[in-house]
Amino acid sequence: MTKKTQTTDGAAGRVTVLGLGDMGSAIARTFVEHGFDTTVWNRTASKSAPLVDAGATAAETAAEAVAASPLVVICLLDGTAVDEVLAAVEGAIAGKVLVNVTSGSPAQARACERWANERGAQYIDGKVMGDPPDVGKPHVMFPFSGSRAAYEAHEPVLKVLGGIAYHGEDAGAAAVEFMAQVAMGFELLIGFLHTLKLVRAEGVDVTEFTDRLAGTLTAYPPLLTSMAEAVKSGKYGPDLGSLDVQAALMDDLIGHRESLGVETVRMREVKRLMTRRIADGHGDQGFSSLFELLGK
Amino acid sequence: MTKKTQTTDGAAGRVTVLGLGDMGSAIARTFVEHGFDTTVWNRTASKSAPLVDAGATAAETAAEAVAASPLVVICLLDGTAVDEVLAAVEGAIAGKVLVNVTSGSPAQARACERWANERGAQYIDGKVMGDPPDVGKPHVMFPFSGSRAAYEAHEPVLKVLGGIAYHGEDAGAAAVEFMAQVAMGFELLIGFLHTLKLVRAEGVDVTEFTDRLAGTLTAYPPLLTSMAEAVKSGKYGPDLGSLDVQAALMDDLIGHRESLGVETVRMREVKRLMTRRIADGHGDQGFSSLFELLGK
Repeated sequence: MTKKTQTTDGAAGRVTVLGLGDMGSAIARTFVEHGFDTTVWNRTASKSAPLVDAGATAAETAAEAVAASPLVVICLLDGTAVDEVLAAVEGAIAGKVLVNVTSGSPAQARACERWANERGAQYIDGKVMGDPPDVGKPHVMFPFSGSRAAYEAHEPVLKVLGGIAYHGEDAGAAAVEFMAQVAMGFELLIGFLHTLKLVRAEGVDVTEFTDRLAGTLTAYPPLLTSMAEAVKSGKYGPDLGSLDVQAALMDDLIGHRESLGVETVRMREVKRLMTRRIADGHGDQGFSSLFELLGK
Repeated sequence: MTKKTQTTDGAAGRVTVLGLGDMGSAIARTFVEHGFDTTVWNRTASKSAPLVDAGATAAETAAEAVAASPLVVICLLDGTAVDEVLAAVEGAIAGKVLVNVTSGSPAQARACERWANERGAQYIDGKVMGDPPDVGKPHVMFPFSGSRAAYEAHEPVLKVLGGIAYHGEDAGAAAVEFMAQVAMGFELLIGFLHTLKLVRAEGVDVTEFTDRLAGTLTAYPPLLTSMAEAVKSGKYGPDLGSLDVQAALMDDLIGHRESLGVETVRMREVKRLMTRRIADGHGDQGFSSLFELLGK
């Protein structure tokens, strides 16, 4: 047990967690370990036993759990489960701060905020970028958004969960950040697997290549910054060289993969975008100008 | 002018550069600045004037340029240009070390090595990852491969060009490294632009998001290493969670983009791979198992 943390509303570190799946349990356990009076509830009551052993209090009902603390963290399976549980606690939430870290879209977050506000509760939406066993470590990112006043009041509690950040009053902003970061991760990782396929087909050791790639990745941020500035201004210089030159290089890359029997679907899609942009008269611009073609 | 560098074959820092496009000129200028006796040649002779002003010697013919130095760096437009120039200097290359940094495939590099070896020359293939104005700085990467003896003998000369690395006796290895790194770059960057489209459609500042993303990128290397190890061993744990869970998340990401009018072609391709892998009975494995589907 580490020291007790005081919340700024005067209540002595009371927090409730609704939902004790892997992530909810990890969150509740982290609160307990930081000395908060932690009340937990789960639809299947048996999930609370290990947390009670660790020092949490199990509530009989969700409404009872909500009544126990000024701050209520909701971590359920999905938006449908959130709707069901919130309907069951509707009469208990006035004056509370709800922090919903359940997976969901920006639109779901905004709808949830409206519902909560109409019933006298403040609302903060959050997302978790990381694995349950790592909750409490700084590399597990928790983007939050929604009520600034509620966030600032409860930041001392929330910060025990990991690397927290506030993304603004739009309750949907945390979900936007989550979806953007996750999508970027999927794009990077499928590209990585694709590259490993090429590397292995050429007989190069995939882990040794990955070590070198890790070094290359650290060089990308300045390029990303300059590309984001080009996107923002709409002024596309020849980053990475002109599209005319890049399209020729892309032909080489696709041809090379084909010669090795590695699939080229996603590379061809990039080439198709380059060809369209060149046909539009922008062959002198750089890679970032492909941004203009990514609408529907 | 900085200090003269001695090559290990006893010749006092003599080097020849064939081809004075932007990259060839930058390479020749770097050699001159490091005090090498630099001989240059270009099909269009006027390109040599600025280098002669800087201290280089212009040769009348390619064969004369080759005769001037033990080490001959070739930096031309493409493989066809290399073939033409090499045919013209065929009688002059015995005993020389050719370092060909012209763009080209692994197969072209291997063919070039055979041709050179048959005529009594040693061959090193190289590729340039960086822009001409930055040649000579450590972040411009020069992967080399081919004759180890020739590379080790001339490493003191080559290292003035930037961050050099030797990738083995297979002359094609430098081209493999180049193509893999460039392809990875294209995949990362199209994913990045795609993500910016989503971010901007949601009203988030693209440069502020990029600053945050730069921080996230630094967290990827350990994940890439574990994924490469999974690929190498063929043992795919549930990295990033199981594919069953990831496929549901991917549906959310695709639905969210569609609601914003952002195109989803490449995301759908990733989803299609997940669906195939799940249908094959591997829904409990992780993202890295998609590697198995990237053949033709």
